[in-house]
Amino acid sequence: MMLSRYLPILVWGRDYSRAALSNDLMAALIVTIMLIPQSLAYALLAGLPAEAGLYASIVPILLYAVFGTSRALAVGPVAVVSLMTAAALSNIVEQGTMGYGVAALSLAALSGLMLIVMGLFRLGFVANFLSHPVIAGFITASGIIIAASQIKHILGIDAEGHNLLELVISLVTHLTESNWITAVIGIAATAFLFWVRKGLKPLLESLGLKPRLTGILVKAGPVAVVVVTTIAVWSFGLDENGVKIVGDVPQSLPPFTLPSFSPSLLGQLLLPAFLISIIGFVESISVAQTLAAKKRQRIDPDQELLGLGAANIGASLTGGFPVTGGFSRSVVNFDAGAETPAAGAFTALGLAIAAVSLTPLIYFLPNATLAATIIVAVLSLVDFSILRRSWHYSKADFAAVLTTIIVTLAFGVEAGVSAGVGLSILLHLYRSSRPHIAEVGQVPGTEHYRNILRHDVMTDPTVVSLRVDESLYFANARFLEDKIQNRVAGDKQIRHVILQCSAINEIDLSALESLEAINQRLREMDVKLHLSEVKGPVMDRLKKGHFLKEMTGKVFLSQFEAAHSLRGPEFRNSDVNKAAAN
Amino acid sequence: MMLSRYLPILVWGRDYSRAALSNDLMAALIVTIMLIPQSLAYALLAGLPAEAGLYASIVPILLYAVFGTSRALAVGPVAVVSLMTAAALSNIVEQGTMGYGVAALSLAALSGLMLIVMGLFRLGFVANFLSHPVIAGFITASGIIIAASQIKHILGIDAEGHNLLELVISLVTHLTESNWITAVIGIAATAFLFWVRKGLKPLLESLGLKPRLTGILVKAGPVAVVVVTTIAVWSFGLDENGVKIVGDVPQSLPPFTLPSFSPSLLGQLLLPAFLISIIGFVESISVAQTLAAKKRQRIDPDQELLGLGAANIGASLTGGFPVTGGFSRSVVNFDAGAETPAAGAFTALGLAIAAVSLTPLIYFLPNATLAATIIVAVLSLVDFSILRRSWHYSKADFAAVLTTIIVTLAFGVEAGVSAGVGLSILLHLYRSSRPHIAEVGQVPGTEHYRNILRHDVMTDPTVVSLRVDESLYFANARFLEDKIQNRVAGDKQIRHVILQCSAINEIDLSALESLEAINQRLREMDVKLHLSEVKGPVMDRLKKGHFLKEMTGKVFLSQFEAAHSLRGPEFRNSDVNKAAAN
Repeated sequence: MMLSRYLPILVWGRDYSRAALSNDLMAALIVTIMLIPQSLAYALLAGLPAEAGLYASIVPILLYAVFGTSRALAVGPVAVVSLMTAAALSNIVEQGTMGYGVAALSLAALSGLMLIVMGLFRLGFVANFLSHPVIAGFITASGIIIAASQIKHILGIDAEGHNLLELVISLVTHLTESNWITAVIGIAATAFLFWVRKGLKPLLESLGLKPRLTGILVKAGPVAVVVVTTIAVWSFGLDENGVKIVGDVPQSLPPFTLPSFSPSLLGQLLLPAFLISIIGFVESISVAQTLAAKKRQRIDPDQELLGLGAANIGASLTGGFPVTGGFSRSVVNFDAGAETPAAGAFTALGLAIAAVSLTPLIYFLPNATLAATIIVAVLSLVDFSILRRSWHYSKADFAAVLTTIIVTLAFGVEAGVSAGVGLSILLHLYRSSRPHIAEVGQVPGTEHYRNILRHDVMTDPTVVSLRVDESLYFANARFLEDKIQNRVAGDKQIRHVILQCSAINEIDLSALESLEAINQRLREMDVKLHLSEVKGPVMDRLKKGHFLKEMTGKVFLSQFEAAHSLRGPEFRNSDVNKAAAN
Repeated sequence: MMLSRYLPILVWGRDYSRAALSNDLMAALIVTIMLIPQSLAYALLAGLPAEAGLYASIVPILLYAVFGTSRALAVGPVAVVSLMTAAALSNIVEQGTMGYGVAALSLAALSGLMLIVMGLFRLGFVANFLSHPVIAGFITASGIIIAASQIKHILGIDAEGHNLLELVISLVTHLTESNWITAVIGIAATAFLFWVRKGLKPLLESLGLKPRLTGILVKAGPVAVVVVTTIAVWSFGLDENGVKIVGDVPQSLPPFTLPSFSPSLLGQLLLPAFLISIIGFVESISVAQTLAAKKRQRIDPDQELLGLGAANIGASLTGGFPVTGGFSRSVVNFDAGAETPAAGAFTALGLAIAAVSLTPLIYFLPNATLAATIIVAVLSLVDFSILRRSWHYSKADFAAVLTTIIVTLAFGVEAGVSAGVGLSILLHLYRSSRPHIAEVGQVPGTEHYRNILRHDVMTDPTVVSLRVDESLYFANARFLEDKIQNRVAGDKQIRHVILQCSAINEIDLSALESLEAINQRLREMDVKLHLSEVKGPVMDRLKKGHFLKEMTGKVFLSQFEAAHSLRGPEFRNSDVNKAAAN
């Protein structure tokens, strides 16, 4: 039992059938074909040699197959994590040096360790602080940065920049140095890939092809571009005319590598590794949950942390870089019929064969082609509709999205995601520190109590009933004190204050002491404090303090009971005092 | 109207009566007598010359009388803020230098500006993030540090330390250098003052004195010690035997001074000034609210910020240091019968007369006497009962108190309060990120729905009803997704999921998207999602998105209505499936 909790492979492996095998093999073939160009491209994006992309797709996917709980997730390099890897490393070591590759291994190892620790201590909830709007804003901004960072490869120029503005300025100033042959290849490849996405699918469908075949042909678009442009460069010797190519790629299985654990390097990688772990986990778990739901399967988030952690440790020991469960590759895997993680293992096998046998064929592959596949892939991530949606739904969410996008574009991915998370938390705390407190009155003919400012209700000049629509904790405890004191101090008729507690899910010690202060101050004003509709767990908690003994009034089961038993002689309709309530 | 909002003096000044005048004068006399030794002592604590304490009690109290809303608050130097001033400044400039005094002015000015800005922008809620347990722990730890820091004056030795441990070690190693005459004065003064607090009051009461007179005599204890020890030093020439005395104090009204605004100094003072502002504000508003309640008066927290801000600006322009509304002096003022802020103005007048005429008399006042008054005052702040109370009530609150005390003692006041606030916020977020989600069933014979694990209720195998006891926001959105998916994926009988929303006060965009994902995934499993008892404001918000249109089920007014209309044929008592619910 215990073992199969930590090794999900023991569960699905026991019942592995011939039918599942043939489905998994088919899915693996399709995913392998799709992954070859994608892996090379993401290695380029991460600032690493092309083969690192292949290596990062082999052992990690095998380890995830052993430890992961998703049946269809495909683990490997993904766009956003590759960008974050490049952003983290280029601050520390120069691209193209040995140290850069080693730092990438360290980053993967550190990220893997963090994921495993989070998994073992069940700390996956940390990822919840990345709100959906922040993720959406972050991914959109990252897509823009990634696309911009690839334009130099498309045009065959050198350009550098730590943020979007610097990058764009650098691109513009170097524009005249463009290599026109590279630019033709790059622009043509980009245009073709966009057409494959937008124009080919409707065309094939109108020709009567089956949707599944259409899907496979569309996914094969990048492979076609790779083949055509590689042959073009080879046939015409374009590399001698300044077209940059992938060049020598070792024919090898993933090598055994060791990350560096120098303290100064680890210190610098700590924050990036944490952010990469969290963002990678969020991307991966979202995909896994979505695909699992389609087959009524369960995903265990803590076990997923272990699976992704193992995958990253694997990447660090076999010449890779940080990996996670990718959206597009997982969806392709699922659509192609993958039934178990064995499909991932077969994909790994396919990529291993490619690494050993196919690498000489990509010697003449132009970098511009890889850049084109990246641009087309990431621009599908760019989605500004989150701005419109959040604006309509909630200004606080809108502020978080906008901040994330602007800070990511202006100061980079780490600053962007940190700013977004920080602002979300501050806004949440701010909102809950000023809770909605409604003064309520009785709806005539019912036992219901509603807001006196919104409804035509009956009130009693000697009894004030307040409904607090928030848990009471330190951030809003004083707010309640002020609110009650201000309501009561000015109105000498009041004899009773009832707090309707139906929406109070928690009362912490600060709030308890505020209630004691409120009770004490009301006593000085000769006003009694009562509670109504206190929830069970809150009541349990209150009984541990001495507040209930000191309270001048009583605890009532319902607001109606409370108001009814405290009712004074002047009970009346509130039309008159709606104005006075302010 | 507008003017009197920002100048409360216009309100109470208009009706100022002869009776109020005589009460205010009496209160001012008593407070003045009490404040003379206290002001000198707190200046010593802040590391400043004695006269700074008098100056800091004159103009600030006048300005608060104009801008403040509390009738009884007495503004001036207080123990904790004086300690924080010393802690902030001794990191930057050496004590006893000109620069130290100027830095104190800058700290007061910066703190005053921050308070005014917070007041104008109504940012007083920031202070709410100081939870009661953190404040209690902080004040207890500060009291210990303050008392420890004064022992060197009691014994007449030199001792330094940035935290309690260093201070104690330094005291012990210098113990042999004690000046025995100083030690006799210091220890006798301390013992006498403790006796005045604990023994004199019962004694006088048993002699039949009226409580009010007893109170005044007890408060006059420090004055008696000052007079006796000063005369002793003067008579026997003890200062020539190594007893350190206050020495020359200029006979002068508060001088006009200008704080330094050098950017490097301001940069270093930014965080301390912020913490001093917040802690000073919290101490002041708590006292003000407590006293105001006794007379059914209102306190406007935002206006209080302006009043305290003006007082601190005043302190910075007249040779003072950071001030706030003090607990003991305000209570004395109130008990002595102060009716309006005019009492404060008269106190200022009394202290001004003292500053001009009495300062030569304190030439021979030993520092050990001032240290004794500080020790006795602050040890009454030390209260470890908060540890016991928080332990019983909530482990999270206990953790916050303990952390605040330990970090304050080990690393100083700024670190302590920051750690306490940070931990409180993290624990709050953690708790709300894992909300209580109860599966509910119908209590037989009623329309109530309660937790199936706690109550004997009726359930339906095809309908799952879940009550979420927390607002839904980004930190718990994914938790709900996991919870629902895990509950439903394993049980193929389920056809409907009802979320009972009675305790949901807010749904942010992340939670809305999680609900959309839940709806989508349930649809894939052929299960419908319904909502019940959605609050008005939450419903208004939901209507802004397209979720309600996409939702597979309906929104029901009550949980009973929902469960009733979805009831399957196998509705049964839940005794059987209590176990299955896990």
